Order: sequence, then structure tokens, then C-alpha cells
Amino acid sequence: MIKFADRMDGMQASDIGDILKVTVRPEIISFAGGLPAPELFPVEDIKTAFNAVMAEAGTTALQYGQAEGWYHLREQIADRMEKRNGIKTDAEHVLITAGSQQGLDFCGKLFLNPGDVVLMESPSYLGAIDAFKAYQPNFVEVPTDDDGIIPEALDKILATTENVKLIYVIPDFQNPSGRTWPMQRRRDFMEVVNKYEVPVIEDNPYGELRFKGEFLPALKSMDTKGLILYFSTFSKILTPGFRLAWICANEAIMKKLVLITTAAVLQTSTLNMMVVSKYLDMFDVDKHVAEIRPVYKHRCELMINTMKETFPEEAKFTDPDGGLFTWVELPERINTKELAIKALDQLVAFVPGAGFFPNGGNTHCLRLNYSNSTDERLVEGVHRLAKVIKEAL
Amino acid sequence: MIKFADRMDGMQASDIGDILKVTVRPEIISFAGGLPAPELFPVEDIKTAFNAVMAEAGTTALQYGQAEGWYHLREQIADRMEKRNGIKTDAEHVLITAGSQQGLDFCGKLFLNPGDVVLMESPSYLGAIDAFKAYQPNFVEVPTDDDGIIPEALDKILATTENVKLIYVIPDFQNPSGRTWPMQRRRDFMEVVNKYEVPVIEDNPYGELRFKGEFLPALKSMDTKGLILYFSTFSKILTPGFRLAWICANEAIMKKLVLITTAAVLQTSTLNMMVVSKYLDMFDVDKHVAEIRPVYKHRCELMINTMKETFPEEAKFTDPDGGLFTWVELPERINTKELAIKALDQLVAFVPGAGFFPNGGNTHCLRLNYSNSTDERLVEGVHRLAKVIKEAL
Repeated sequence: MIKFADRMDGMQASDIGDILKVTVRPEIISFAGGLPAPELFPVEDIKTAFNAVMAEAGTTALQYGQAEGWYHLREQIADRMEKRNGIKTDAEHVLITAGSQQGLDFCGKLFLNPGDVVLMESPSYLGAIDAFKAYQPNFVEVPTDDDGIIPEALDKILATTENVKLIYVIPDFQNPSGRTWPMQRRRDFMEVVNKYEVPVIEDNPYGELRFKGEFLPALKSMDTKGLILYFSTFSKILTPGFRLAWICANEAIMKKLVLITTAAVLQTSTLNMMVVSKYLDMFDVDKHVAEIRPVYKHRCELMINTMKETFPEEAKFTDPDGGLFTWVELPERINTKELAIKALDQLVAFVPGAGFFPNGGNTHCLRLNYSNSTDERLVEGVHRLAKVIKEAL
Repeated sequence: MIKFADRMDGMQASDIGDILKVTVRPEIISFAGGLPAPELFPVEDIKTAFNAVMAEAGTTALQYGQAEGWYHLREQIADRMEKRNGIKTDAEHVLITAGSQQGLDFCGKLFLNPGDVVLMESPSYLGAIDAFKAYQPNFVEVPTDDDGIIPEALDKILATTENVKLIYVIPDFQNPSGRTWPMQRRRDFMEVVNKYEVPVIEDNPYGELRFKGEFLPALKSMDTKGLILYFSTFSKILTPGFRLAWICANEAIMKKLVLITTAAVLQTSTLNMMVVSKYLDMFDVDKHVAEIRPVYKHRCELMINTMKETFPEEAKFTDPDGGLFTWVELPERINTKELAIKALDQLVAFVPGAGFFPNGGNTHCLRLNYSNSTDERLVEGVHRLAKVIKEAL
């Protein structure tokens, strides 16, 4: 008899998987995924970078390499974090991972015994919840307002909760809420974290996709005690197809993460690391990101404006300054899981909100993605959704 | 204070890491790693495949995809397993992983509670030991002879040991021993496994690299109860740089592995999967493997013959029919960890054997790799090593 490990009891297929599977049907207008716009991928430049790598160092690119990742790429990432996020660091403090999801899994492995506590914004990224669940923690949701985590609430939880091993936050254009923490909130958060000295994952996949307001420095740039593990990725500024992301962390954490990497995967693809490194050397990624931003800005505004025109007054939604998502709260009597099924009948898809709360509840919320639709489909999809919501009310 | 999880106590840096780091120095002749010969990588063909993918479906290749992997690649792998290994299966039973190491990590997660028992050949692949250690099992080493695991010994262990959750074996050109299980041994093993119904990982990275004797069917081809998880990889027949491998398993296991994949990494690189898939469509991988085999045969014979000429009589070593490694047993008074330091002084490197025994001991063995050296360096390295061994005796 095959017996699975106890941790598998907590790892169940979500309804979201079913929704995402259906959304590949072209007649369905999907606001469900978190896909970047493929028409913006710099396909020709990536081809050029790939062919340059193969011409200069094909056999190196196709061979095994180091667990930490391709050194030059780690240097480029360190430089870029200083320039874009105010983080003073170097290549030695950068670990390449095969997507940020892998970094989340590694951090679950690094920090969590069964029953340990993870703190998260409420709501938070459902992929992070899934990754940590494999390590059987208890989740405590930290109350949030329009400016992100409420520092006083965090302080109270840390003062009264045993075995808090990890805090997970997304201060920029949060997934799913689209909210961004203002500067003062970041400072106040760091003060609480420094008081209790708990490690924090600052997940920043979307930070560069700001299309309104001023860039804000990363929490990591204010980290005087080595508590912040800063996560970012090439998936949203370049393409997800490489599965390339990174963690920037202090030396003690880096050493452990390298052990975990070696045991779990040996290393990330040398080829992919060298191609992205070459792309960064040959092309201007800042210019590329500058081309993405106005497209996402336009799509976001089009979605929000169409929602303002068509959604009933009882529907509240966020108006993000960047990133990929807006978050909708409906009256509590509406169950968005049931609504999602009705929406699919009308050929429009979204992700019900409950999955973004590790402890469940909140069945009246939903997440919408605007980055991956044409204008026409955006407008049509919001109209369809408005109709479904109105009928449900 | 940052506190790591308990499992990290068992995950320590090995001496092997230090040895492998030194071996990048070009003056050191390294038999330490397990690298395929890069001069055999089909660089031009891979370039052609990549450029074809980018021309036909660049944006698809650079976008997110399915957790299970690129469907056409899974079909190609299923076809190939039937043709090469006698395994009747289909795409639905193939999961793409980012290297077999990732598959090992996933199986640790799937099967192992702390304190559960994993059975392995004695010795066994040290990367598998590392991967499973993260899940805090107890290891029981199953006695082996020149034909692999001894079925009677396995039966006795299974009859008397609680909580055996997983058996890990490499029947073809085992790492580190270079040994291969004959046909009868495979049948006897399956009989014992079927009696106790314990899941088995059959790890077969080297099976196609047979340069002597007849191909033998995989254990998976005799699996009537869905107990075998068959692992193989493109790392040795094509290149390791893609980090592409696969698991073939029954439906119940596949479903759980897909949940684990989603939570741990979302998916393997779409780009890499599509490029390898295109390579398989455009080029004849069997022809390519047929070109690798004689090179490895030559290098193996050159190493073994040079060892026969130069090694002292007390040194026993295996004469493999394929794969990448030979295994040396020295008199028990020789400590190969100390020997490795002396060898590095003479600019030759190997991996001490103790790391291949999950419960330690066996400090008198060592592993040699022959796939990644030129003739001249092979001969010179073995001469140096012979001298170091003689001095130690």
C-alpha cells in the first residue's frame, strides 16, 4: 500500500486550477490568471542574446554550473537592485531561483517546522500560501487597510504569538489587492520587525511596473539587521518562460539556501541564466520596462473606468498604481465561487477571493487581472461581469 | 533572532562541495564531478531548434504554461520510454521536472514523514541522500553484490522494518558503483516489491549510455501494481544545461506530484521544454546517443586499463558496462577523505566514498568519473592517483 506523507493532507487541488484550465478556451475572456502581455515580450532581442551565448560559450551554457547561479547575472541583479530599489548589496548575496515560487518553497523548508506561525497580509498571494502549506505551519493573517499591513496590529500579534518564524509581505501593488504601502508605513513596519527580529520575505515581482506616483524604496533598503529576504523576478519585466528569479539575503541565510538549492534542484538552468545575462548586457531592459508600463497603465485604467461605469454601487474595488491586479469586494451575501461558475457561463473568468486568505472565509471577494487582455476584450469582459454581478445581487 | 527549521540540522555542507569548487582550476585533473563531455553537446542543432521555436511560437515559449509540462514533450518522452525501455505508458503519466534532483525532492515531500524509512542500495547516489535528508527519514542500506541489491536481503528488511515508505534504486550503471542489475535480479526484486507493495524510485539517468552488453528492460516495464516511479533525464543524452528530466508514475502519484509541482515551482521552463521538444522533432537523438557511447566506452576502457597497469593490487575497482563512473575500494586502513587532500596536492581530484553511504562509514572507497576528460588527462590523472594511493599504503 502506497502511503503519502502527512503534509499531503493539507495540499489539495484548488478550484482555481479548474478555472484556469477552462480559460485556455479562446471564447472565454479571462481576468483569472496573472499572465504578462506576451505581445510585449522582446522575442527578437532574446533570440539575439541566445545566439550570442551559443556562439561565444555554447558548451558552457549547456553544462552543469554552480548552485548559487551564474556569477555575472548575480552581479547584474545586485547592480540593478541598487539602482532601482535602493538596496546596497553584491553578487555574493544573490541566489538565483527557478521562479520566485521556488524561493517561497525554499523558505518554507528553511524556516518552518510543523505548527510554526507564518504572518501574512490579509489577503495575500495564494501561491505563497500553497508553498508554505507543504511545511504545515499555522497562518495568522495580519489586518490591513488601504496602505497595507497595519503596524500596530502586527506589533500586537508579535507580542502575543509564539513561534512566529516568518512574515510574508508584498509592499508594491500587492497580489491580489493591488495596494501599495506608502513610505511611512514601510518605516513603521521595519520598526516593528526590528523590535521582534523576525525574518521577512519582501516579495516584489511587480515593483517596476509602476504607472502612477513615485517609486518607493524597498524594505530591504532599510534593513539594518539582515532580516529581509528580498525576492524579485524576470517574469514580469522580461518573460516568465525562463523561470528566473532571485533572493537577496544575508550571509547566514544565503549559506542555508545554497544547501537547500543543492539538495532540491542542484541549480537553475545555466542556459537560461546566461541568456538573460547576455540580454541585460546587450539591450536596455529599463527601456523595455518603460514600454510595458504605459500599456499596463492603459489597460488598468480601461478596466477601472469600465467597472465604474458598469458595476453596481455595492461593488468596491481598488485602483492600483501599478502591477497586474485589482481587487473587488462585493456585499457579503454574494459567494464569488458560485459567481465564478455563473461568470464562466457568460464566458468571463476571474479568481474567487477566498483562496487568498490562508484561513478561509471572505467568500465575497474576487481578483481581476488586466495585463493580458486587448482593449476590446477588457471592455466586453467587464460588461459581462457587471451583468453577472447585478443578477446575483 | 532568526531560527531555522529543525530539518536544517541534518542538512550540512559536505566536503564534496569543497572538492568540486577546487576542480574548476584547470591544472587539476578532475575525476570528481559527474559531468558529461561538453564537446559532444549538439550545440548547432540546439541553436536550430531554439530558433525554430522562436520563429513559430516565440511568445508561447516565453509565457507561463502547465504544471505537468509541455504536452508534446510528454508525448515524445512516453513514446521514447516505450521504444527504449519497454515501458508502456502515455503523456498523462509523465511529469516534467527541472532535473531529476527536483524529482527526488518532490518524492521526499510526497512520501516521507520525519522518522519514516527509505531503503537504498549500499552505496547509493549522494544527491538522493541529500534530497531525502530534508524530510528527516531514517535510511536503511540494503546489502548489494556485483549484481545490485540482494533480493533476499531486501525481503528480510521489509519483513522486519516498520514505516518503509520508499525504496530508491539505480539498476543501470549505478552511481557510484557502476554496477548493473542482470535480468533475473530485476525479476526477483520486483517479486519482493510486489509482495510488500512499497513505492520504488527507479532512477535511470545513464541507461542509454550502455557501451557493452545488451540493453535490459526497466523495472517499470515489469510493474504490474503501479509501484514504480521511473526517473530519467535529458542531462546525459543531450545536455544538463536545460535542467529537464521526467517522472513516469501511476495516476494517483501523478496527481499528488502535480500539486507539489504547483506549490514548489509552478512549472518547469516552457522555453526549455519547447526547445528540447523541437530538437526531438527535428533531429535524431538516437543517432546522437550512438555518437556519445563509443566516446564514453573508449574513456572508460582507457581509465580501467590504466588503473590495471598502475594501481596496486590491493585496490579493487568495478568495470562498468555503461554510464559515467567506476568505484574503487582500497584496504580499510586507507581514509579516502585524507587521500583526497593528498591527491589535490598532486593536482588530481575524486569524490571520497563515504558520502554515498547515508549512514556513513566506508571511509576506504572512492568514485571516479571518466566521461569528462581527454585521453591525455585520463592517463596522467590515473598515474598521479596511483602514486598517491601507493604512497598511502
